[in-house]
Amino acid sequence: MFILSSPSGAGKTTIARKLLAQDDRIKPSISATTRPMRPGEVDGEDYYFVDRPTFDQMVEDGAFLEWAEVFGNCYGTPRAEIFHGLKHGHDFLFDIDWQGTQQLHQRAEADVVRVFLLPPSIDALETRLRGRGTDSDTVIADRMARAKAEISHWDAYDYVVVNDDMEHCFAEVSQILHAERMRRTRQTGLVDFVRKLTR
Amino acid sequence: MFILSSPSGAGKTTIARKLLAQDDRIKPSISATTRPMRPGEVDGEDYYFVDRPTFDQMVEDGAFLEWAEVFGNCYGTPRAEIFHGLKHGHDFLFDIDWQGTQQLHQRAEADVVRVFLLPPSIDALETRLRGRGTDSDTVIADRMARAKAEISHWDAYDYVVVNDDMEHCFAEVSQILHAERMRRTRQTGLVDFVRKLTR
Repeated sequence: MFILSSPSGAGKTTIARKLLAQDDRIKPSISATTRPMRPGEVDGEDYYFVDRPTFDQMVEDGAFLEWAEVFGNCYGTPRAEIFHGLKHGHDFLFDIDWQGTQQLHQRAEADVVRVFLLPPSIDALETRLRGRGTDSDTVIADRMARAKAEISHWDAYDYVVVNDDMEHCFAEVSQILHAERMRRTRQTGLVDFVRKLTR
Repeated sequence: MFILSSPSGAGKTTIARKLLAQDDRIKPSISATTRPMRPGEVDGEDYYFVDRPTFDQMVEDGAFLEWAEVFGNCYGTPRAEIFHGLKHGHDFLFDIDWQGTQQLHQRAEADVVRVFLLPPSIDALETRLRGRGTDSDTVIADRMARAKAEISHWDAYDYVVVNDDMEHCFAEVSQILHAERMRRTRQTGLVDFVRKLTR
């Protein structure tokens, strides 16, 4: 389970999309949500859209690896689907915040790699959060405050990558993914392979 | 401290040389030894050549991070030099066996990454150990037995890489080195960087 977190404006979505496009083995973790479907969204691709009673029942059944309520809407990662995929050799990319990361990490069953992206400077972050410049200073200040709050949890991650250049940042995140796959404990065929070598 | 171990015949020396040639930040760990200098060897480059009383005194002074006696000759990693280099931002490549790896890993002060290389098959290993074909079957059998004994310690390593193709294996080992440098705990400037971002 490969977790990518960052304050908004640090380029996480671009890096995540690129990783999913270029690596066949990693799949997106698709959350269940109670929020209404938006135009253009596809059930089972963007989210699993469920009603509140269904979501609550899933929480009660322990069907989520992590879940949260944000502005009255619920979001959760369905455990069955993730473990089914992992068993079949897939990795999963999680685009979640530090609280979801903490929930996931605390589950003994979860083998996670946690990567945090940082903007290269506070000015670069503000420039990105200003976007097309149509938002008021109050809105921008609020976004900056939330970004700084998210950044303050940087030390709950295994890896930190500064996104000073998108291509460079992507290469670094890819290296982390590939290296972590080579961990002895994650190579499921090794025991048999070594047995053959030493018999 | 980046440790590369493998049975002989798995291509470790080639991978190590390539890594040292292509990466400015990683330096070879140079051992002290009591064995006589061979023609072509340079003191302070291949080894630090010392006499036995000097070596024994260094052991007594705790001057080695790890040391061993092999066929009557002593070999040891001088701690002062390693820590001086680490403080100045260098990484060190250790070409040591599983026993040296264990000694190094057990030191609380040592931040190690342990990589084990495996041959792609037992036949490939034997072909390489036969070399130019001038050695007797007894010699080959002894080499194979020693290689298998070394392989049996594969599970004391963080990463395992199968050397089926030298270029591919080198790329994988490089990815591990680069990824491990991005670990939060190894990026010394991060605390100040984040402080600037969030103030």
